[in-house]
Amino acid sequence: MSHEIKGINEECGVFGVWDHKDASQMTYYGLHSLQHRGQEGAGIVSLENNRLHGHRGLGLLHEVFANPDLLANLKGHSAIGHVRYGTSGEGDIINIQPFLFRFYDGDVALAHNGNLINAKTLRKELEEDGAIFHSNSDTEILMHLIRRSNKETFIDKLSEALNTVKGGFAYLLLADNAMYAALDPNAFRPLSIGRMNSGAYVVTSETCALDTIGATFVRDVEPGEIIEISDNGLKSYRYTDETMYSICSMEYIYFARPDSNIKGINVHSARKRMGKTLAKEHPVEADMVIGVPNSSLSAASGYAEASSIPYEMGLVKNQYVARTFIQPTQELREEGVRLKLSAVRGVVEGKRVILVDDSIVRGTTSKRIVRLLKEAGAKEVHVRISSPPLAYPCFYGIDIQTKEELIAANYSTEKIREIIEADSLEFLTEEGLINSIGLKLDAPYNGLCMAYFNGDYPTPLYDYEYRENKED
Amino acid sequence: MSHEIKGINEECGVFGVWDHKDASQMTYYGLHSLQHRGQEGAGIVSLENNRLHGHRGLGLLHEVFANPDLLANLKGHSAIGHVRYGTSGEGDIINIQPFLFRFYDGDVALAHNGNLINAKTLRKELEEDGAIFHSNSDTEILMHLIRRSNKETFIDKLSEALNTVKGGFAYLLLADNAMYAALDPNAFRPLSIGRMNSGAYVVTSETCALDTIGATFVRDVEPGEIIEISDNGLKSYRYTDETMYSICSMEYIYFARPDSNIKGINVHSARKRMGKTLAKEHPVEADMVIGVPNSSLSAASGYAEASSIPYEMGLVKNQYVARTFIQPTQELREEGVRLKLSAVRGVVEGKRVILVDDSIVRGTTSKRIVRLLKEAGAKEVHVRISSPPLAYPCFYGIDIQTKEELIAANYSTEKIREIIEADSLEFLTEEGLINSIGLKLDAPYNGLCMAYFNGDYPTPLYDYEYRENKED
Amino acid sequence: MSHEIKGINEECGVFGVWDHKDASQMTYYGLHSLQHRGQEGAGIVSLENNRLHGHRGLGLLHEVFANPDLLANLKGHSAIGHVRYGTSGEGDIINIQPFLFRFYDGDVALAHNGNLINAKTLRKELEEDGAIFHSNSDTEILMHLIRRSNKETFIDKLSEALNTVKGGFAYLLLADNAMYAALDPNAFRPLSIGRMNSGAYVVTSETCALDTIGATFVRDVEPGEIIEISDNGLKSYRYTDETMYSICSMEYIYFARPDSNIKGINVHSARKRMGKTLAKEHPVEADMVIGVPNSSLSAASGYAEASSIPYEMGLVKNQYVARTFIQPTQELREEGVRLKLSAVRGVVEGKRVILVDDSIVRGTTSKRIVRLLKEAGAKEVHVRISSPPLAYPCFYGIDIQTKEELIAANYSTEKIREIIEADSLEFLTEEGLINSIGLKLDAPYNGLCMAYFNGDYPTPLYDYEYRENKED
Amino acid sequence: MSHEIKGINEECGVFGVWDHKDASQMTYYGLHSLQHRGQEGAGIVSLENNRLHGHRGLGLLHEVFANPDLLANLKGHSAIGHVRYGTSGEGDIINIQPFLFRFYDGDVALAHNGNLINAKTLRKELEEDGAIFHSNSDTEILMHLIRRSNKETFIDKLSEALNTVKGGFAYLLLADNAMYAALDPNAFRPLSIGRMNSGAYVVTSETCALDTIGATFVRDVEPGEIIEISDNGLKSYRYTDETMYSICSMEYIYFARPDSNIKGINVHSARKRMGKTLAKEHPVEADMVIGVPNSSLSAASGYAEASSIPYEMGLVKNQYVARTFIQPTQELREEGVRLKLSAVRGVVEGKRVILVDDSIVRGTTSKRIVRLLKEAGAKEVHVRISSPPLAYPCFYGIDIQTKEELIAANYSTEKIREIIEADSLEFLTEEGLINSIGLKLDAPYNGLCMAYFNGDYPTPLYDYEYRENKED
Repeated sequence: MSHEIKGINEECGVFGVWDHKDASQMTYYGLHSLQHRGQEGAGIVSLENNRLHGHRGLGLLHEVFANPDLLANLKGHSAIGHVRYGTSGEGDIINIQPFLFRFYDGDVALAHNGNLINAKTLRKELEEDGAIFHSNSDTEILMHLIRRSNKETFIDKLSEALNTVKGGFAYLLLADNAMYAALDPNAFRPLSIGRMNSGAYVVTSETCALDTIGATFVRDVEPGEIIEISDNGLKSYRYTDETMYSICSMEYIYFARPDSNIKGINVHSARKRMGKTLAKEHPVEADMVIGVPNSSLSAASGYAEASSIPYEMGLVKNQYVARTFIQPTQELREEGVRLKLSAVRGVVEGKRVILVDDSIVRGTTSKRIVRLLKEAGAKEVHVRISSPPLAYPCFYGIDIQTKEELIAANYSTEKIREIIEADSLEFLTEEGLINSIGLKLDAPYNGLCMAYFNGDYPTPLYDYEYRENKED
Repeated sequence: MSHEIKGINEECGVFGVWDHKDASQMTYYGLHSLQHRGQEGAGIVSLENNRLHGHRGLGLLHEVFANPDLLANLKGHSAIGHVRYGTSGEGDIINIQPFLFRFYDGDVALAHNGNLINAKTLRKELEEDGAIFHSNSDTEILMHLIRRSNKETFIDKLSEALNTVKGGFAYLLLADNAMYAALDPNAFRPLSIGRMNSGAYVVTSETCALDTIGATFVRDVEPGEIIEISDNGLKSYRYTDETMYSICSMEYIYFARPDSNIKGINVHSARKRMGKTLAKEHPVEADMVIGVPNSSLSAASGYAEASSIPYEMGLVKNQYVARTFIQPTQELREEGVRLKLSAVRGVVEGKRVILVDDSIVRGTTSKRIVRLLKEAGAKEVHVRISSPPLAYPCFYGIDIQTKEELIAANYSTEKIREIIEADSLEFLTEEGLINSIGLKLDAPYNGLCMAYFNGDYPTPLYDYEYRENKED
Repeated sequence: MSHEIKGINEECGVFGVWDHKDASQMTYYGLHSLQHRGQEGAGIVSLENNRLHGHRGLGLLHEVFANPDLLANLKGHSAIGHVRYGTSGEGDIINIQPFLFRFYDGDVALAHNGNLINAKTLRKELEEDGAIFHSNSDTEILMHLIRRSNKETFIDKLSEALNTVKGGFAYLLLADNAMYAALDPNAFRPLSIGRMNSGAYVVTSETCALDTIGATFVRDVEPGEIIEISDNGLKSYRYTDETMYSICSMEYIYFARPDSNIKGINVHSARKRMGKTLAKEHPVEADMVIGVPNSSLSAASGYAEASSIPYEMGLVKNQYVARTFIQPTQELREEGVRLKLSAVRGVVEGKRVILVDDSIVRGTTSKRIVRLLKEAGAKEVHVRISSPPLAYPCFYGIDIQTKEELIAANYSTEKIREIIEADSLEFLTEEGLINSIGLKLDAPYNGLCMAYFNGDYPTPLYDYEYRENKED
Repeated sequence: MSHEIKGINEECGVFGVWDHKDASQMTYYGLHSLQHRGQEGAGIVSLENNRLHGHRGLGLLHEVFANPDLLANLKGHSAIGHVRYGTSGEGDIINIQPFLFRFYDGDVALAHNGNLINAKTLRKELEEDGAIFHSNSDTEILMHLIRRSNKETFIDKLSEALNTVKGGFAYLLLADNAMYAALDPNAFRPLSIGRMNSGAYVVTSETCALDTIGATFVRDVEPGEIIEISDNGLKSYRYTDETMYSICSMEYIYFARPDSNIKGINVHSARKRMGKTLAKEHPVEADMVIGVPNSSLSAASGYAEASSIPYEMGLVKNQYVARTFIQPTQELREEGVRLKLSAVRGVVEGKRVILVDDSIVRGTTSKRIVRLLKEAGAKEVHVRISSPPLAYPCFYGIDIQTKEELIAANYSTEKIREIIEADSLEFLTEEGLINSIGLKLDAPYNGLCMAYFNGDYPTPLYDYEYRENKED
């Protein structure tokens, strides 16, 4: 479904380009393709000679750069950019990335996608030693570690810092002579390298941005790797050898754009296979299959194809919903005002409907959609979820941080079915999910992180260690 | 496809509600469902006691009412609203509707969807007689005719005026004691009546707005009919008996929302049937069927179902494209920057693709999409259009006014195929279209207007009469 | 005092230029000098070939043209503009001038400064005959009269219309071959002609605009005169010979800029003479003379000079007060928060102060200022007003329309003194005012309108005739 | 003259209030009175329980808080605020104060008026030790010094930091249990304490803010003093005893508002005395005295009074000039377009004029005004400057940092007269200035800083030490 409707969100997307004459514009178009990864703010920093120029702001990319001069002013042959999804209440421009640092010995910019699990500890240690933080973001920590490192070279300082931070992270840095990309030891977050016909290198959170700007996929950044791109070309460094693939399975299920490939696997195709597997695991007699727009449409068409039940458009999403839209009062909602999603009476009336959705978080949305369909005349609504029940929080970059808000952490499938008022409810199995995605890496779960489903976290949890047992 | 991409556009949507305590808010939500019919401007006029209050502005509905006070100020128990699609160059607020007239003997507001074919003649006659027009819009004409009528009652004045104007029109008026809806003698444009649980009456261009606000469909306004809704309930008048159904077939093919019903027929279902018929008329061997998002997805799934070829997501539309987005330069476009639509390499690479689209206007978009798919590795691209070739302009409310811009008016199907670089190209037949829609009215073409396809205009053309033979 | 503080306001300023290559920019700078005459809205219409282009908006001139493209788009060699002061509650862009009319036989633009006294009657008559008005402004009436005239030439139609409207008016019209200026038979409102070095003609409400753009004063437009400026030069027509000078004395006292000349008399110098005369008529022993900034500073310095009492800055006006400024709550005002005007304790503490102001409308402002001074430690405050008591409404273009709001219409000078808490209060005499201004025209009061002071209206009052005796 | 016209500018104003229920609003009104000290940006930080809330932005105060919710959200009983004048090119919101720091052990906010002369050295030392700065402002340095101090108490840390920074500074800090104000050892910058009827303490750069909010003056902060205001009342600390008064004389001449008192001396009265002394030192026969609005009007009226030559309004300043105003092209300026300042032809034509201005920086403005007056017909223009020639840069908080831009550093008075095309030119003597201001402190120049006039800097210059002898 749409990211606004669902209560889970990815934390950010990064994009960078080295040695292109329209570097900041390419970054703008690249970020545009990553906008689904963060809508709270955006920024771009460009490198002109030895000087970095930056602009960032709250809102969607096109809002931040509504005045085209702001983009035109970001001159230079290289640039990095960021789109931010932010947790509630801290909607201050000071948290919008890339962060731009001006030191007496040169400028550095930094952008980050992910979540550190030892941030609180590190920040307190640094502050006790006199460090001053200017944002609420974890991201600044890396720069303090770099600046306080006693190592000689930038790569060595950066390596030391990367070994100190823990969690899920994809960093992009722009200094006055090189662009750096670094990935955490588990490759939780996606990060890919591309190349343009002009020879320019590109780094991006998702491959869909490569297609948007006409670049060719080169390879994914590897866990524990630092990539340095400079006028001497691309160099690879390892800051650690203790790596193990645990790619976030929610990227395949829900976050990533269907036209992206992650570790060589197309996201739409993976979702369609989830739908097909779901049809085999949990068949049901019905008149039509419908998906929740937009993220569940691939899985729904897969379910339809595998079950030979017609695939119909039983739900329509209004494409004009915007931030400034005036929301209906509770009273009007009770009168039946429905804005974002409409059930199509002319399609579902009198029919038995299979509703395919990618996940259930709190259950409130599922309940609302089942009701919408029943009010529009659906005779039966059979809910099929193309992932296993979400029962554990994520600490590596997805905004589901407490068990309390996860309905599947607290109720049985039958009880959830009852709550959401569905005629039947089934989830894809863990095995079904792993097989549908089709990764074949030599690591647990074939290289996927399945922690949200089974609590099997691939790393120690540091700051969050005792969280499960305590009040937050 | 998306309305922004395609070069044809509907001219406007209207919505009104009588006797609801949150009348202007209901109108806001109703118009929100009609936003696809016009994005240039929007306005609402409410009736409080005997006084009308209005606000209108350029842009999308949520932009016009970005300050919520503007909506809150529109107090009263009845309201009408309008979303406008405007022709280029006249983006002045003065043309945004509803028009609000304050006379010494009372206020009247007027909103209009359609196009008059004798507007130029009427306007000149009125100006020669001292009338002063303030907008460039045809809409004002009706009010001048009403005010200059020598009849006694408002209904008689309105009837006389409606018999003077010619073309396609759906009018909504709000006076201090009633709301009026009127439809042209051919029912070119859709106009439906609904009712809320509270008893409030609603009039709307499309039924999808009824679902959005929780209203129940009552019936469609009939050709040649005036509906008067007041505290005495709903009354029906006939201003003419010379009526004949000619419902715009493009509403089914492209304009209307898939969740709307027009004259009892669901739009998504009609489109899916067009796709099925197209598959039967023009089969081809291929690996997958893909639709151009969003308007061709129904037809594409119909084609897939009828042909048993998998339905895939081979094209992705970026949902964050906005007005203020900075467009790539020609140079960057040539480098491969693609914003609105991406082909999904991971899906189409090495495959034979059937591309279903709803129509071809100039051919430039089709050519661009075929190229996108081939660049993403598609081995063959077979284009199937779910409507007949567009070869004649429309004068009743759709913005295709010259033959010159219609590729099918100037080239054979084979030549078009060559221009758009497709491996094959086929159109749905006229008969196939009529049967797929499934209207059964006692009128030519079962009650559809097919003029864009065959030039058979259901009325004299007045101001446009000799246009076909002259330079415009 | 400042126009925002005082409760009386001029209704608008007009400016036009014919045959200058930067016509719309010159109009922008000309209007800038007239901004004190109206801050609610502004607009400019330019003539390019036979086509008029216009832009108008709510707010100050620089706000309306905040986007410089809007001005740059107003191409052409001639232009007229308008700044509007509007009565409360009708802050709709539809009332902002110049009005731009597009007829089948050509475009015409119209701008107006003044007030018609038979507008209500004329409007009703016109509407009964089918006319449709689009604004609440009187200004439109003239255009309806012109378009309905049966005369042959434009000058004859215009003359007929000017003989039909009654009151105070200065009109500026721009047609596709000429610019027209017309003044009412009493010359209530100022209107002057200037010429640039390039040969371009300029028409302006005040001569200060001539200095701003580097133009030379030619002459004032005369009562009952139409000026036609075209490529054939300047022509003068008379639409009536029944004329009699009654120049608004409030222009000299308060409205006009001190650097303007009206009928050859400099406004600052007239005000300084009013102050000198006031000192002679109403001397008082004191330590200093202070004026209410900004409009009373000239009179105050005249009073100081004539009385040999030091002129001091005892009040300071904050220059940064803007429309969007957040006003203090009543509670904070009671705590002593003062925004616009500050008394200077370091100057007035322990002193006997003569406070010179140009007029008293409701008395509330005077009372506030006297209090401010006393709270800052002034021992005595002697108020001297450089005009006679305002006791009658104005119907010719100043926004004082009811006796109820005029304190001097309801109370004696002694009673007003008591209300405003001054130690003494005196007004300039009518004779003193007339002599200080120094006009010598062959008409009652030497050519001044003194109606606000003595009720001697120089014309019949038409729509307002019985107003004095009735509730409004 | 107006700050926008003149090329010299004060760097900022600060305001704070402790224990008032509308603390952030009082700060808003206080800052409003200090707006003349900085128009580039503004911000407010409030303290609610133990949490600081802040908002800041580019532009004037009312622009930064254009949305009233932004101010309303700054809840709490104490607040500090800042208005910023910024040097060109760094118009980034990141430099707008107060800076708000969130540490694991509590929040602190910091605002600063002044300029450090060892900032560059300190910043480099701190960065070499791992410190990260986020703004270009000197202000951050103090916080790094505080956080790195090894002292125990906050007062001790702050004292140590204040002894490390050198130059002109007035700091305001807000912590979770107190507000702190600190002044440099020379009292270069003004800083006063006031008290409200409610008992709330106020600290402000100028006393005019006390009058605006209805507070009473308590005393000025002393050089080398730290003021701590908490729920325990006001406490005073000394961070150094090596103090010596050197109050900026330009505050009296030009920067401060005429209604402020500095060290007990009213600014308007001081300026009037400068004008009187100037008349005695440099008399000349003439018909009138005029001042450059607004800052030279006091001095001009003093000159007029002492010389018995009439004081006239020969120059008018347009009060509606705003940031977004479209400037005339060079070509239009040559045609005579004049926006900000107009000479009043009706006043000066044919007259001998004494033009009083407060200072000459580059000479370009003086030249322009002399020309304006001559073009308006002035027969002679005698320029009298109410301060000595500006010949040396300031390093303590005024933006005149190079000798090159100071005309009086490079030319004789006679040569300047020739350049500005005046008939005569004279400056006030240093002695005349010191006596006119009337300070009687036991320090060189009676406690004034006269460095801009004679190069006698009251402190070592640190980073600027060799500047005089080198290229900048």
